Amino acid sequence: MTEALRIVSLAVGDELLDGRVADGNTKDLGDALSQLGLELCAARTVPDARAVVVAAVRAAADEADVVVTSGGLGPTSDDITAECIAEAAGVGLRFDAAAFARIEAMFALRSIPMPESNRRQAMLPATSRTLENEQGTAPGFVTPLMGARGPVEVWSFPGVPREYRHLLEDRLLPELRARLDRGASRVLVRRTLRSLGLSESAVGERLGALERDNPDVRVQYRAACPEILVRVIVTASERAQAEARADELAARARADIGASVYGVGDEPLEERVLRALENKGATLAVAESCTGGLVAKRLTDVPGSSSVVQGGVVAYANQVKTAALDVPASVLAEHGAVSEAVARAMADGARARLGADWAISTTGVAGPTGGSEDKPVGLVWFGVAGPGGTAAHKKRLPDFGRERVREMAAAWALRFLLEAADVA
Amino acid sequence: MTEALRIVSLAVGDELLDGRVADGNTKDLGDALSQLGLELCAARTVPDARAVVVAAVRAAADEADVVVTSGGLGPTSDDITAECIAEAAGVGLRFDAAAFARIEAMFALRSIPMPESNRRQAMLPATSRTLENEQGTAPGFVTPLMGARGPVEVWSFPGVPREYRHLLEDRLLPELRARLDRGASRVLVRRTLRSLGLSESAVGERLGALERDNPDVRVQYRAACPEILVRVIVTASERAQAEARADELAARARADIGASVYGVGDEPLEERVLRALENKGATLAVAESCTGGLVAKRLTDVPGSSSVVQGGVVAYANQVKTAALDVPASVLAEHGAVSEAVARAMADGARARLGADWAISTTGVAGPTGGSEDKPVGLVWFGVAGPGGTAAHKKRLPDFGRERVREMAAAWALRFLLEAADVA
Repeated sequence: MTEALRIVSLAVGDELLDGRVADGNTKDLGDALSQLGLELCAARTVPDARAVVVAAVRAAADEADVVVTSGGLGPTSDDITAECIAEAAGVGLRFDAAAFARIEAMFALRSIPMPESNRRQAMLPATSRTLENEQGTAPGFVTPLMGARGPVEVWSFPGVPREYRHLLEDRLLPELRARLDRGASRVLVRRTLRSLGLSESAVGERLGALERDNPDVRVQYRAACPEILVRVIVTASERAQAEARADELAARARADIGASVYGVGDEPLEERVLRALENKGATLAVAESCTGGLVAKRLTDVPGSSSVVQGGVVAYANQVKTAALDVPASVLAEHGAVSEAVARAMADGARARLGADWAISTTGVAGPTGGSEDKPVGLVWFGVAGPGGTAAHKKRLPDFGRERVREMAAAWALRFLLEAADVA
Repeated sequence: MTEALRIVSLAVGDELLDGRVADGNTKDLGDALSQLGLELCAARTVPDARAVVVAAVRAAADEADVVVTSGGLGPTSDDITAECIAEAAGVGLRFDAAAFARIEAMFALRSIPMPESNRRQAMLPATSRTLENEQGTAPGFVTPLMGARGPVEVWSFPGVPREYRHLLEDRLLPELRARLDRGASRVLVRRTLRSLGLSESAVGERLGALERDNPDVRVQYRAACPEILVRVIVTASERAQAEARADELAARARADIGASVYGVGDEPLEERVLRALENKGATLAVAESCTGGLVAKRLTDVPGSSSVVQGGVVAYANQVKTAALDVPASVLAEHGAVSEAVARAMADGARARLGADWAISTTGVAGPTGGSEDKPVGLVWFGVAGPGGTAAHKKRLPDFGRERVREMAAAWALRFLLEAADVA
């Protein structure tokens, strides 16, 4: 049976370990491999220390078919990746005259003298082939190595994100695609289910039977509070076969989790909401108290949202709720700002005042102060006004700090709106 | 002799390897350790696969005194960190009744039934001590392990960045600080030199002698194009001793690199510029063609910049250069927009029109089109107008794409301004 290609990432650089730079290259690599139907098996970050890098290259070669290194290709004394890979491969260095000529030309173009140390960047492992880098001076290269499991290719890219992505996309991915086309690796296919309304543990329990019945299928859970994202991963030697099985399992998972699933795929909640309204030709207004503009921000972050979103009102003060949203002062006095009646009145007011088909409102206690026994931090009321009438919902969100309470409330507002719009 | 404490990071989670999530926790850990005078020796990311996690915990314990794991503490089937650490430690799991009671209370507060699977989050390695998590349901824990080098502490935090930072800052850092105070670890002290004007290789060559003379000192180079950041790292058993040596070496490095060093420390170029002008009580205006607002953006990103920056004009079209900056149409016609005369006139115009003490201007060919043999992509003219007169500078920047040409041009504009302001 064909095995899945084993790919491991090795990032080299003190700056990745001392807090100066966050490594985004590993994520880019993982993302690109996922889209191809491959997976990154592990990632390691090591400092610019020769013995450590050599050992890490050897260890990576023992567990992978392809190793991708990042960083350490510059001209200074702490740039040692080429030497370390050569040492791990048991070979010397070669001088790449063509790569050197390109470096020289770059300096000449800028009319500055080239320091002798730039020669270092053209010293590559003797057995490597060069990857021309159109985005910077350091060439990439691919070095063959013998690992514990057989022959391995070590691909070395500069750490500069732009240069890394250039060599990843223009050099490595086409070769991997060709290997997949030749049937040289199993293919992974993923389906994401997006859920809001159940805890992560509850979602996990509902998928317990599916996991037991299909031990070959991987199920991943991720809490993007308050949303739970579930991924079902299927592998097969042929893509079509994997796709079909993934669709079947995603459908079963959706049924098992139930109504809290609002979507399948990569479409986030705000885009899902906008699409639902756009399909009806409907418009939306937003009236926010405790979320203070977060709901409007999430929606308007989406390109093209202006065809749906008419506008929003942030109504923190009671007088703004009255002046801008026509919430009667008597209702505020009788029920308090955090109440079902005010949530309804805010949604109705926004819908009428902004001339939208739909409106969503939030009013709650985001904290850290302002909570009471009756209305504790985390209590939020939501109003949803639409062509068919107005509804209100109440949520008691966990008090994990003001920022998180507001984020959760914004997500719930979108969820309640989607529910109503999907039914209408 | 006291050794430096060896700390290793181990991130657990498929989502970190398949492109869904970029790991920011390792950077946060590295940053916090750096500030304390410690260092992160290596970092590893592994998928949610039991055998892989157990092996990675053991391998980390063999090379470290302290291992910090991140992720895999949730309630679902793919959350296996506690089990894996227990297995690596050769112990079973214990049920932490107090941690469980806290989880139950969180569900009760939200009036939703707690799924049975949340019990998993209270099953911790038998020999561990619990770290109460005030930001979420999953408790952290510390498990003692015997590694190849001696006893090791494995600290396990949730992967959610907020929860990770909470346990890092409130639990781990105080304990590490206490160890340092007891003299239980060597201390690292870093000095950063910020340079703009030499290539990375040229800076490296100038520090060659310093590196040779001080083999115990680490020198790190980082190209943040066009800036080169150099770090000198000194270790000693006492902090005061390390600080003194670091100051001495930083002074030597500064002298060796020469005039391209514009600052020492973490203050970025734009803040350095603003400080120089603020100290004189001077104000600034910006006139940008090819940088299209980037110079003004970098400056106004700094809080409090409004006391210096009067404003800016983005003058792409020639008619705007004339109408808003009084660049004579005849000068544009005679010399072209990308010229010394226009750069000077733009700076003069901005200074006069916006009533500022200083003004900086940019006009160049950012590409990808618009270049000619005479004025290629990457050619930029800068004007600096100040109380003592107006100067112009020319740069031929490497054509690594429009975005990078513009970034480099903006940095050079700030550098030329700083040079003039420091002399004036």
